[in-house]
Amino acid sequence: MEEKFIPLVAEVADIIQIGSRNMQNYPFLTAVAKTGKPIMLKRHYGSSLRDWLGAAEYILVEGNEKVILCERGVSVPHTHRSTSRFLLDLQVVPAAKEVTHLPIVVDPSHATFWRPWVRSMALAGVASGADGIMLEVHPDPPNAAVDPLQPIDFKEFEKLCKSMDDVAKALGRNVL
Amino acid sequence: MEEKFIPLVAEVADIIQIGSRNMQNYPFLTAVAKTGKPIMLKRHYGSSLRDWLGAAEYILVEGNEKVILCERGVSVPHTHRSTSRFLLDLQVVPAAKEVTHLPIVVDPSHATFWRPWVRSMALAGVASGADGIMLEVHPDPPNAAVDPLQPIDFKEFEKLCKSMDDVAKALGRNVL
Amino acid sequence: MEEKFIPLVAEVADIIQIGSRNMQNYPFLTAVAKTGKPIMLKRHYGSSLRDWLGAAEYILVEGNEKVILCERGVSVPHTHRSTSRFLLDLQVVPAAKEVTHLPIVVDPSHATFWRPWVRSMALAGVASGADGIMLEVHPDPPNAAVDPLQPIDFKEFEKLCKSMDDVAKALGRNVL
Amino acid sequence: MEEKFIPLVAEVADIIQIGSRNMQNYPFLTAVAKTGKPIMLKRHYGSSLRDWLGAAEYILVEGNEKVILCERGVSVPHTHRSTSRFLLDLQVVPAAKEVTHLPIVVDPSHATFWRPWVRSMALAGVASGADGIMLEVHPDPPNAAVDPLQPIDFKEFEKLCKSMDDVAKALGRNVL
Repeated sequence: MEEKFIPLVAEVADIIQIGSRNMQNYPFLTAVAKTGKPIMLKRHYGSSLRDWLGAAEYILVEGNEKVILCERGVSVPHTHRSTSRFLLDLQVVPAAKEVTHLPIVVDPSHATFWRPWVRSMALAGVASGADGIMLEVHPDPPNAAVDPLQPIDFKEFEKLCKSMDDVAKALGRNVL
Repeated sequence: MEEKFIPLVAEVADIIQIGSRNMQNYPFLTAVAKTGKPIMLKRHYGSSLRDWLGAAEYILVEGNEKVILCERGVSVPHTHRSTSRFLLDLQVVPAAKEVTHLPIVVDPSHATFWRPWVRSMALAGVASGADGIMLEVHPDPPNAAVDPLQPIDFKEFEKLCKSMDDVAKALGRNVL
Repeated sequence: MEEKFIPLVAEVADIIQIGSRNMQNYPFLTAVAKTGKPIMLKRHYGSSLRDWLGAAEYILVEGNEKVILCERGVSVPHTHRSTSRFLLDLQVVPAAKEVTHLPIVVDPSHATFWRPWVRSMALAGVASGADGIMLEVHPDPPNAAVDPLQPIDFKEFEKLCKSMDDVAKALGRNVL
Repeated sequence: MEEKFIPLVAEVADIIQIGSRNMQNYPFLTAVAKTGKPIMLKRHYGSSLRDWLGAAEYILVEGNEKVILCERGVSVPHTHRSTSRFLLDLQVVPAAKEVTHLPIVVDPSHATFWRPWVRSMALAGVASGADGIMLEVHPDPPNAAVDPLQPIDFKEFEKLCKSMDDVAKALGRNVL
């Protein structure tokens, strides 16, 4: 997204998401921060927790405290399919909780890039203590225009939501 | 462990564990396999799922089918503490289930190397679909002779077992 | 650098360098490309060769073909000092030559982050076939305002230039 | 190699090589050390310099000081071909020289797993300060029984030896 479109997006969006490739695009972070909108800052797949929190500071320093961290998989030496380039880093959930009050969301869709693993990693995300799960859902996944291997369909989404609720409740957490 | 001690260990042990550094010590795997004992094969921190299953074959080919896989953290570019060298790879749980019938256990103690994160990763391990969780427990962790930052105490263990049971039950799994 | 400063920089600079953290800041690449200036595109420490060449396309597509690739170290599971976060990837030199005609420069200063290793990696860069070496030099390195562990001084620079010339000539390459 | 074959090998071999997968097979290291033969210890692709030197200690402690370190590529998040699983770590050459007197050899064949890159990485290895280069050579590489993408032929070997000599001499090093 070019900077000139930020006002248009801010007018209609509830949350503005910064994609992982722009995590360290600092002038852009500053410009988006100034909208006052909640901002979901996706972690770059090659960045440390420290790099990530450093990027968040560019938003916070503008007086916009509505920052949501989103873990979406990191580059590692070994993934488990040739089409999967990332590994979901759930260890970053307790690590982030140790050093920041910012909420952290987990995105198993982009991390696994493989529909059959999304359920397992979404549930693990809830159990790890994440504040939210971000899922890619599509009415007809095999015919999705982009990333057709990744989204789950509405039926699986409904089933997964029920299970995520069950896990959250089992751990005594409030679920809306 | 030297090969000559294998019979002594086999006499008293219920399960023989192969440490991650010996995952590709093939003559040793062969020798341990011949005891007929269940074998827990820890994944080397620098190995792929394919390398790991290849190592398991050295046991299976001896006719010993009682192999348990154990994930204990992999080396990655970014960990979240200078003392933490590994990242727990939970994505390997659904990945392994896709290609093998062997049970898979998750070890959050060695992966996190940090007591405060063990609970979070143990619960995530259960939710990911792992068949078991391996935990390092010590009556007085700060005074443990080795790795004092890692083990949990009996009280936290009891509490964690209760929570792991609750998560497993919430997901409709049988708990002994 | 904010986009509004691009014209000011273009007026005085011979080459515009895109720092590694902005490698995938696509609107910025487009804006810089339009200056028509030669552009040195540093590789992000967590990016593949494919990601890097994909970023270069954003410059090339604007009709600016004066792109120089610069390798400056990648994040890996194991570096050799706690202060060194990167590993110089010299294998990318022949790999890039296999798929692109763009010149490739190697930066051992940022990769090693450690003065005593710069000479060794600069010479290896020349021998690997790199088209250039980028070095951080400072009149009084221990008192440099930033990164004091990294730059070499003028004397070592002169000595290194002589050795780099000798290696290049030994390999039959033209040296200016 | 099983331990029982060590005496047979020691009788005829000038140097005994420990493959990377056995780098941390400590009883085996101890047994090989006792032959008194020079030992080339290949670095495990997932191990740090510290792990590697720790493994070398198992040989040194037996009174066998004829240890040669051999770097052969490490697992990293991004390699440059789908068939290449490793990246040659030349930064480990000056790093090792900083902390040990043991000679260090570089193996570009196994690291690149790709014949066209071997020359470039062998020359870079010499320039980096390595004490030796280990090359896989075959009279008819495309028909090699194992790893046919990797070896160079005799003609390229001769040409490469000449170039390696030229680089070494250009850097004032003695060449036999």
